[in-house]
Amino acid sequence: MKLYKIFSEKDAYCWFVMMFLLSAHIGLPAQSNTADEDADAFIIKSIFETTYSEGQAYEWLHFLTKKIGGRLAGSPQAAAAVEYTRQIMDTIGLDKVWLQPVTVPHWVRGDDDEVSIINSALVGTKPLKALALGNSVGTGPTGLSAEVLEVTSIDALKALGRAAVTGKIVFFNRPMDRMQMSSFAAYGGAVDQRGAGQVAAAKLGAVAALVRSMTTEYDDIPHTGSTQVDPDGFNIPVAAISTNDANMLSRTIAYGKTHIYIKTTGEFLSEKQSYNVIGEITGSRFPDEIILIGGHLDSWDVGEGAHDDGAGCVQSIQVLHTLKQIGYKPLRTIRCVMFMNEENGLRGGTQYAEESNLKKEFHLAAIESDGGGFTPRGFGCSAVTESFDTYFKSLSAHWGLLQPYGLSLNVGGSGADINPLKSQGGLLMGLRPDSHRYFNYHHTAADIFETVNKRELEMGASAMTSVVYLIDKYGLK
Amino acid sequence: MKLYKIFSEKDAYCWFVMMFLLSAHIGLPAQSNTADEDADAFIIKSIFETTYSEGQAYEWLHFLTKKIGGRLAGSPQAAAAVEYTRQIMDTIGLDKVWLQPVTVPHWVRGDDDEVSIINSALVGTKPLKALALGNSVGTGPTGLSAEVLEVTSIDALKALGRAAVTGKIVFFNRPMDRMQMSSFAAYGGAVDQRGAGQVAAAKLGAVAALVRSMTTEYDDIPHTGSTQVDPDGFNIPVAAISTNDANMLSRTIAYGKTHIYIKTTGEFLSEKQSYNVIGEITGSRFPDEIILIGGHLDSWDVGEGAHDDGAGCVQSIQVLHTLKQIGYKPLRTIRCVMFMNEENGLRGGTQYAEESNLKKEFHLAAIESDGGGFTPRGFGCSAVTESFDTYFKSLSAHWGLLQPYGLSLNVGGSGADINPLKSQGGLLMGLRPDSHRYFNYHHTAADIFETVNKRELEMGASAMTSVVYLIDKYGLK
Repeated sequence: MKLYKIFSEKDAYCWFVMMFLLSAHIGLPAQSNTADEDADAFIIKSIFETTYSEGQAYEWLHFLTKKIGGRLAGSPQAAAAVEYTRQIMDTIGLDKVWLQPVTVPHWVRGDDDEVSIINSALVGTKPLKALALGNSVGTGPTGLSAEVLEVTSIDALKALGRAAVTGKIVFFNRPMDRMQMSSFAAYGGAVDQRGAGQVAAAKLGAVAALVRSMTTEYDDIPHTGSTQVDPDGFNIPVAAISTNDANMLSRTIAYGKTHIYIKTTGEFLSEKQSYNVIGEITGSRFPDEIILIGGHLDSWDVGEGAHDDGAGCVQSIQVLHTLKQIGYKPLRTIRCVMFMNEENGLRGGTQYAEESNLKKEFHLAAIESDGGGFTPRGFGCSAVTESFDTYFKSLSAHWGLLQPYGLSLNVGGSGADINPLKSQGGLLMGLRPDSHRYFNYHHTAADIFETVNKRELEMGASAMTSVVYLIDKYGLK
Repeated sequence: MKLYKIFSEKDAYCWFVMMFLLSAHIGLPAQSNTADEDADAFIIKSIFETTYSEGQAYEWLHFLTKKIGGRLAGSPQAAAAVEYTRQIMDTIGLDKVWLQPVTVPHWVRGDDDEVSIINSALVGTKPLKALALGNSVGTGPTGLSAEVLEVTSIDALKALGRAAVTGKIVFFNRPMDRMQMSSFAAYGGAVDQRGAGQVAAAKLGAVAALVRSMTTEYDDIPHTGSTQVDPDGFNIPVAAISTNDANMLSRTIAYGKTHIYIKTTGEFLSEKQSYNVIGEITGSRFPDEIILIGGHLDSWDVGEGAHDDGAGCVQSIQVLHTLKQIGYKPLRTIRCVMFMNEENGLRGGTQYAEESNLKKEFHLAAIESDGGGFTPRGFGCSAVTESFDTYFKSLSAHWGLLQPYGLSLNVGGSGADINPLKSQGGLLMGLRPDSHRYFNYHHTAADIFETVNKRELEMGASAMTSVVYLIDKYGLK
């Protein structure tokens, strides 16, 4: 019986699992499934059940969010998260656990809260809650005041020209498109304003920038996130304001000249030594074919980095934990990577791929979870063009096993940290959770542990484990 | 152009929609779709977009939960909910709005909070948070105290026999099965203890009963819900305790004799006059073929009845609102029913079906939303055996139009309030939302507005509207 071989004979638990599987098998009506399909179905069921009953992901996430908290690259909390996740991986029976050094930028928000005051004919003088974007330069301690110029795109700003922009605070106010079915698509259609807006404004002589928060909700919560740093020094202070405040600000501008006072004192400190945290179960037959699962360990300083991306980290460790719990001996090397500095530099993902290439490693597959700890709806897939069809067909052939769990397999998408591995020619996958709540929390003080549902988190981990199992067993030929 | 006909020529908004549809059409690459399929796809997209941009469901739910609150049948809040939802329906341009009288039971929780105190060798004397089940008889003002007898099923209780049970407080402690993929399946496997446990215990001489709360979470929140009332008077006080307390109580019982003091003073008052609230758009071609959408207006007294079932009510009204907003003129009668007293009597659903049968109405389809306001995953379907295949095939033929919205069509399931309509021979459907969070809130003080996500609520309403559109246009032949 094939099932037998994959379990350690010495482990009483595994015997229990095996007997459970066999007894369940006997109880099933005759079907046209092959023996392999039946065995796979039982093992996948066992993966879900073991994760539900013995999974630690939720407890790990509790520590990461409540005992450590927000953990921007270079911060003491990021160092604590490195140590904590290494300690977890040290305890779950992996073959190797190590830290990969990564030098990271270290941006800090100013000691003072950001201050922003609107002064306009319509609303008079009133405070506006602003939150500096990560990587933003500061205004200096006295702050600055200027008239606000509203635009809905970088192109529109450029069309206005230098004379109209010089000396102004540029306010990027194109909303995320609420009509998009995927909130990530809506995000993709608006986030250029946050990423590239301030540099474009700086190059036209603006003194600061404001960005409408990246959410389709109407609420009072500003969303931070990284802004690009111009290497030639065209950088100005830039902060996000909530969607409700953005709508209000837009109305005051439509009514008459509107000035804003803004003070923000964020800055870059010296770069810091940090780490990717890595653990693996070495493959028994094809140790040089790596199947990676991962998330990013850093998060924004506000909030607790619960959905972004504490969830992806603990799910990835849970994959290895569950494989150990069910006694599965992988044919290929299953490696979990907690990447550092996804949020404002991607140094961890870049460094990992560079070293991997130098060592001539081959990642047969890499799966990132960085879409929140919500109910998993499926996976997206990417690869270099010449391999994609083969991979997709190979995985699709077994995907019927995952359909009972509500999981679809989709073309397109992977993860920011694993994307640099694309040139190795393997399959890149991204877990796709239900996306409707993600941008309620993303990059805000509201991204806290309490917004994560234990079962949903565990379902995502189980889904990842199941895909790892299928790729490990069948390869991607 | 077919699209043209379904929109009112006089309504500028509809012209806008039509032009939008036409322009979108022109922009599309040539496909093998028929013109009807293209038109349907555009109308369904318009349904989602109109609901997102002009929907009122979330605001209605805010009023229903925050301004009215928990609204158990017979309560003043239930009367307020009748009046409020009638007023909404009066404002959205329906052809008819009316109240259907329903006489409902009126159970009230005692003025005092329920009190429960555990006294055991293991934990000494300490309070235990209990919440009487709906319909429970009271203990009287002095309460009662007795030894606790733990069982995991009604059958196990019966096997113990009268001598073992007499004078005891029976504690039903079989957990919901966390291994079930659907939390509703897990609920179905445990809820007999809540529904039928106390009567079974009463018949064996028990003096009271406790029930483990119906959730797979480990938390401190007791879940109420209805218990059956024995017509011969075999009823004893019965309350729910949280899963954490249930585990603790079980440990103390395993350690040694455990007594509980319980005081609960709930009672039935006289039956009250209440109403189902009904509104419809009369069909232009087949007015006698009714397509019903609905939810139940009553809720438990604790919490605000946000997911159960404020969400289903406002979604159902939203269906009619959206159809009006896009200017759709249905061929069949589209009727929205807010049923009264689903939670502890089902009088509204029963009365509705009885009167409908007397009037010789025919409900071609009835769709209930009573699974929470979470992301819709699909619909379940039921019908009398001889019709089911025809209906299912008919609807399946068009279901590809809903797959881009992540909606599946499944065999089995409808809704408690519409189930009495089954004998009319039409198709019964239940909206199936993502189920993983439902039992965090179900029948508890935590079922509040803040746990409902606007977009998820609107997606559910859009999904229902789209199904109504397809059934209205194509029938179910």
